[in-house]
Formats: sequence, structure tokens, C-alpha cells
Amino acid sequence: MKLFRRLSSALPALVLLSGGAALADDTAADLAAKASASHWGYDFLADLTTDIGPRISGSKAAQDAAAWAADRLKKAGFDEVHLEKFPVTYWARGAEEADIVQPRLQHLAVAALGHSVPTPSGGIEAEVVVFKSFQALRDAPDGSLKGRIAVITQRMVRAQNGEGYGIAVGSRVAGPSEAAKKGAVALVIRSVGTDHHRLPHTGLTLYAKDAPKIPAAAISNPDADLLERMAAKGPVKLRLKLENKSTDSQAVTVVGEIKGREHPEQVVLISGHLDSWELGTGAIDDGAGVAIAAGAAKAIIDQGLHPKRTIRVVMFGAEEIGGGPVDAYEAAHAKEAGNIVIAGESDFGAGRIYNAAVPAGSLGSPFAKQLTAAILPLGVDMLHEGSSHGGADIEGIHEKDGVPLVDFGQDGTHYFDIHHTADDTLDKVDPAELAQNIAVWASFAWLAADSDVDFRALSAPAGSAK
Amino acid sequence: MKLFRRLSSALPALVLLSGGAALADDTAADLAAKASASHWGYDFLADLTTDIGPRISGSKAAQDAAAWAADRLKKAGFDEVHLEKFPVTYWARGAEEADIVQPRLQHLAVAALGHSVPTPSGGIEAEVVVFKSFQALRDAPDGSLKGRIAVITQRMVRAQNGEGYGIAVGSRVAGPSEAAKKGAVALVIRSVGTDHHRLPHTGLTLYAKDAPKIPAAAISNPDADLLERMAAKGPVKLRLKLENKSTDSQAVTVVGEIKGREHPEQVVLISGHLDSWELGTGAIDDGAGVAIAAGAAKAIIDQGLHPKRTIRVVMFGAEEIGGGPVDAYEAAHAKEAGNIVIAGESDFGAGRIYNAAVPAGSLGSPFAKQLTAAILPLGVDMLHEGSSHGGADIEGIHEKDGVPLVDFGQDGTHYFDIHHTADDTLDKVDPAELAQNIAVWASFAWLAADSDVDFRALSAPAGSAK
Repeated sequence: MKLFRRLSSALPALVLLSGGAALADDTAADLAAKASASHWGYDFLADLTTDIGPRISGSKAAQDAAAWAADRLKKAGFDEVHLEKFPVTYWARGAEEADIVQPRLQHLAVAALGHSVPTPSGGIEAEVVVFKSFQALRDAPDGSLKGRIAVITQRMVRAQNGEGYGIAVGSRVAGPSEAAKKGAVALVIRSVGTDHHRLPHTGLTLYAKDAPKIPAAAISNPDADLLERMAAKGPVKLRLKLENKSTDSQAVTVVGEIKGREHPEQVVLISGHLDSWELGTGAIDDGAGVAIAAGAAKAIIDQGLHPKRTIRVVMFGAEEIGGGPVDAYEAAHAKEAGNIVIAGESDFGAGRIYNAAVPAGSLGSPFAKQLTAAILPLGVDMLHEGSSHGGADIEGIHEKDGVPLVDFGQDGTHYFDIHHTADDTLDKVDPAELAQNIAVWASFAWLAADSDVDFRALSAPAGSAK
Repeated sequence: MKLFRRLSSALPALVLLSGGAALADDTAADLAAKASASHWGYDFLADLTTDIGPRISGSKAAQDAAAWAADRLKKAGFDEVHLEKFPVTYWARGAEEADIVQPRLQHLAVAALGHSVPTPSGGIEAEVVVFKSFQALRDAPDGSLKGRIAVITQRMVRAQNGEGYGIAVGSRVAGPSEAAKKGAVALVIRSVGTDHHRLPHTGLTLYAKDAPKIPAAAISNPDADLLERMAAKGPVKLRLKLENKSTDSQAVTVVGEIKGREHPEQVVLISGHLDSWELGTGAIDDGAGVAIAAGAAKAIIDQGLHPKRTIRVVMFGAEEIGGGPVDAYEAAHAKEAGNIVIAGESDFGAGRIYNAAVPAGSLGSPFAKQLTAAILPLGVDMLHEGSSHGGADIEGIHEKDGVPLVDFGQDGTHYFDIHHTADDTLDKVDPAELAQNIAVWASFAWLAADSDVDFRALSAPAGSAK
């Protein structure tokens, strides 16, 4: 789970469903019931985290994970399974240490940010300048951080839909170059997370072209508190040592399809990403997502259903480390982008789904009425219209190729306690909540793939359609 | 916080208080109100964790902490402050690593147990045998663990009064020698803790004299889950490397007194322990306890109260690493043990106090009635009789010298999520709950010290008293 772009935009219409608003299609109801009761998705996730574990893009583990997942899909009865490889920078975490060395030695729990350059081999030792927000750092005079380690201690707000992330994550993504422009020799940020554990949150940083690349790392929330308290008392000196390195490698995306019986060229794409940060075992981010997408398709296979359109399950191979997956997928599928009827990605853990956003103009379609009826018994009691965010891996095909998106709102109240930390392990996933997700996605995939609705035409601006 | 000995014993009498059972003494009520409103205790704790931090017994940090605390007590207006030094083994944690190396590399979050011997410098690599309880390991045939790493994955139960600890902690304290007797080359245990974070719980282990000393460490709960799942599938090989070392050093206990105006030789002893494990900063274990004991006395000083008896605040210097503090204190105070009227230790974090246990026979005394009235407005609505547990540091003077104990029951529902981990940091302490503890202890200390009640006589067996 990476960035919330325009999360608060484009929610123009709300429909609160009453019990009798629509009648469920028996096939969809049966499918949802069976999907809810199946253990296949949870077993997939348990085995992925146990037998493979951490799998950062470009690593051997990520390549093993792709082979493992493809094998699992083949055994599940998908009509076609293949791998798609593309170049990626393999960023390998090394030893990492952060210590307060003045006024008194205290060890900090630290994690380098993804793509951070390493420190010089002896580490960096410098006095810190603490900023309580990223904006405060932006407002600092040019040159004012010369020779210093900049520290941003901005806090992330907890919210059900996770929107605090979009507000806080700027310090991680853009902070290092901003600090470098003002002369800083390194940047340390408070973790972009809502917990209070000594487990730092890693995540991607992006260097600007016009600034020196300085080492960047996150410390845990309690450590950021400590630094703030110390800095309020007097000068604080920090020692930072990061030994990560970057090499050229390959990422692997896994694709499995249930071929459409009438329009095999028309594709309903459901997805997650198989790669994960390497501190944890990638259970909520995003083992859950690939288990949900694959589990949904598996439920359709198990019911013996043969939809009109093709259902394509994609397990993207490089969401976390960025810069490649969307482009790679777009490049490989440019010719058929127009055939992707609708796309969705599950990349927000396994928290309960409570609402759904469908493409603009489609709320009145038979598809949406059937979906509404199918997922209400699963506890999804609100349908939005106008989805424009659907996960980092599919935003590109939406923006560039106009692929319509579906987006299911999940309870992410506790997601950012765990996200990108060593704590991202299987025990954080509730099997019942995972099953609810699988049932909702199975309902969606079946109904969208067995429908004739043309989401592009419905969502086209008035006047241009029909 | 170490062991719950006989936790469930000796709670013969319960008194549920009705609102009008007793009238509060105005002095005690004023004291409790002022203590509740004071920031002194929280500031003490914040500064201890910020300015000193981790302070394992025998370390320079622990010695610095003692000097710091003594200075703080002097400035607070105690009549007399001194340090008491005694020999201790300084156990210093070194680099530590645990990896599953077969069937696949996965890193585990590990912490050596206190007093564990190190591994040979290259580490130990061996196949594991997993036991789901300590009893299952005890039941294993002699020699059956030859050349293996024994793993105990017994889970700890969560309870308000923390009694799950006493049930689970045997694997940590006695497990290494039991495993060694059966031929194991190392012992790895599931953390004795109730959380699900990748933060292992350290703690003391005690080697038996009749078994080889083998390295011993705890892994986090999610890692224990992973090992269980892997071991259910096939052989698992573990590599363990611990580089800790032990040296002779000195521990320091801090003592501060408010001298009694009528019976200065009679002592009401309230305490906590100043030493802490070094993974965290010792906020709940037991910075809170020393802040509570010192804060209670400070509130009495601030009110200008001069009790008949002496109030002695003791910050014990070697609770965690064991084997010295009680004996050292007993040896130093053997001559005056008979003058310790009553003793208590706060060593269970800063969770809200909900009940109190006073010495047998004292429930009907004017002291108990006054205490009841004073602490009811603080939310302590139940008084037990027959306290026999009062914290690891004072059990010795109770057992050997017959010193009567007071014991306040605290809400420890979440205490063992944090206990002995890197997560033991200031943010885990609620200032309002800490203040409630301080107000209760201040009420107790004042009323016990200004009373003439003789707890020893009251609790003596019928026929021997009066």
C-alpha cells in the first residue's frame, strides 16, 4: 500500500441501501456463501508467509514467491498462468544503526527508507535539527541545515480509511531531497505509522534530480518522542549507519486467468502485489491482497462458473519499491488496454470491507444492483460512484488508458500500526475478515465478468456517450 | 516485575465498601487530592527515561541513575538520602541473532535471556525440537534432545492481575537447565508476554547446578507462531548467535527518608526498583514504581506533614538480574528489621490500582478504616486482608524477618504486552493513572506512618498476640 492519491476526491454520489432495494442473484449469493466458508485464501496467505516470507522486489525470495504462486494458481485450476518479468532495482537492506550519542548514549530503533543511499562506511555523526512537521523543514532557510542531520517528527493521524497516510507520507517520499537542498547530511523521520511500538516503518523515498542524495531512515514513534524530549533540553548528536545497497535485477508479476466463455478478450482485472518489504513477512501488505484476488477467482472456479468475460488475477511484482510495475504492466498490455473492462486492486490489508466505489455512471446499471444485493449480506452497506483510486499498481492504466476502476473501502483503523514494519506477520490477519474480503471480490468479479455493462461508455462525459 | 509467588494464596477476607462505611480524614483527603494533581512523579519518570534511559544493574547507566535519583530526592526535601552499594553480576547484552536456516532463511526477532551464557563465537546451528508446553519438554525422554535446539512455544494467558505470568515463566527461569539435562545445546522460548509484536521479552534465567549451562533466548510471539507452523511441515534448522558477557560489578540502591517526629526508628518502607532491562528504557518496569514511591513521599513533604514514624523510600538496585537485592538489603538492615512496621513495593507498571491487601488482622484497625475512606474516592473499592506478596525486593524481609506487607492490586491487563521488551518506553505510561497510584501510596504511607497500629501483633497467630 503506497500512496493515497486524491483519496477524498470523486465521491459524488452515495446510496444507502435498504434491505429490499434489490434481490440477490442466486448464483452470486451461493458464490458469496461458499467463498466466505473457504479456507483456500487463508491457507495461501499462511503458506506464503511461512514458506516464502519476506520478498522484496528483485530478491531471490521474490522470484521464488512468483514461482510458488504460479504453481499454486495452476493447481487451483486457472485456465492459464504465466509470469511477466521486467527490470527493477533490487534494494537490499544491510546492517543499520542509529544512536543518540549526546547528551547520552541511547539506541534507537531504525530502518533505512527504500532506495536510500548508504552512509559512508564509518557512519555519519552530527547534531540534529528537529522539525515537528515537514512544512517546518520546508520553511527553514537555505543552508540552515549545513552539516546537520535533519529530523522530522510529524505525527500521522489514525483514520478508518487511512487518509492520515497521504498527509504524513510526504516527509518520507520527498523529505530527503528537501533536507539535502538545505544542506543536511542525512534525514531521519518519525515513522509514518499510527502505533507506539519500537518497530520503525520503512517505505519508499524518491530523490529529486536537483539535490544531493543523502541517507534517509525512519525511527519508531517512541524513539521520535524521545528525540523530541531530548532536543527540547539541549543539543542532541546522532550517529547513523546504513549499509544497504542497490543492484539491477528482475521483478516478476504473476498472471492467472479464467477465460471468458463469450468475450475472452474482455478482461476484468483483480489484483494485489506479491512483493513486500523485508522487515516483516508481508502478510497485510500485501499477502492479503494477492490471497484475496486469487481466492476470489478460486471460489468462482470451485463453483463451476464460467463467466462471459475473462477474469484476470494479477499479482504485481514491484509495488513497494516503485517506478516499474505500472509502467511495465502498461507497456506489456498497451495493445489490449482498451479491453480491460474494469480493474481493482486489494492493497489495504484484510480489514473488513464496509463500502464500495464503482465507476461513474454505473450505479444504476443491472450490474451495480446485483452487486449491491450480493454484498449487503456481507456487511457492505454503502455504494459510492466515481471510483478513481484503486491501488498503486492500477492507477497508471486508469490515468493513461482510461481503464475504469472499482475500489472497496476497508477498515484500515489499525492498518498503519503494522504497515511496512517487522510486525507485518500472519497473526495480524483475521481469517474471518479475509474471507469477507474474498467473498466481496468474488461477487464483484463474477458479476462484472458475467455482465455486458460497458463502464467506459457509462462514465464518459455527457454528450460523448451514445 | 519478576515472579508471582503464591499469588492466589492468602486472600481470606474481602470487604466491599459501601459509600458511607467510613469518613475520610481531612488531612488524608487533602493529601490525596494534591498528590493526584502533582506532576512531580511523571516528571521524575520522564526525566529518568530521557536523561538516563536503560539501566541494567551493574552498568554505568545504573550507577548514573542512582546518583541522578539521589540528587532528585535531595532537591525534593527528603530529610536524609544515601546510597547502598553491593556486589552484582553485570550481564551485558551483545549482538544477538536467530535465523531459521532450513527449510528457508527467515530472520527471527530474538533476545538473550538474562544470565544466559553466550554461544560459541560462530554461533550454534542445529535442528529444533518444538514443545508446546514446558511440561512437554519435561516429559521428553532423557537424551532425546542430544545435539538439538529445544524450543518451547507455550503461550501466556492475559489476566487483569497478571497471574498468567507465574504459569508461563517457568520455561524462561528453569527451561534452559531442563533442556540441557536432556542433551539440548540451546533453548529458545516463546516470549513470556501477551502481545503479538516482533519484540522479544527478555528476563532472568537461573541455571541449575546439576546441568550444563546452555545459551538461552526468547523469540517474539509471531516468530514462535512461525516456528510452530514450519515445524509442523518438516525439519527446521535454527542458527543462534549470542555475544553477551558477564562481569563482576556493583549495584546501587537509593534510600531517602522522611524522619518520624515521634518514633523515627519505626519505618514504613515504600519502594520500587531503579534497575531495568536494557532493551527499553524501563518506564513501566520499574521507572513507574520508583516514581510512585518517591512521588508519594514528595506529596507528603509538599503538604508539610510530619508523621510519627519514618517513611523510607527505597529504590532497589538489582531486581531484574536477581540474586542480590533482597539479600543485600536484609544484610544491611538485619539489626533494624524488627523496626520495619510495614513494607510495600510498586512493581507492576502504572496501571490503575483497583484493590488493596493489608496485613492479616488489620482490617478492623483505625488505620484500615482511614485508608479505606481515603482511597475509595481514588477508585480503590475493595480491601483484602492477608497480603503476603509485595514485590520481589521485599518478599525476603517478609519471609525471613516477618515484616508485614501491603499490596495494591493494579490493572495489569496490558502490562505483559510491554514487560521486558524494547517497547517499555514513556509513552506506555498514562500520566493520570500514574497520579492515581501516587495518591494511593501517599495516602497509605501517611496513614501508616502517622498511626500507632502494630501490624505484627495483629497478624500474629491467635493466642500468641496480646
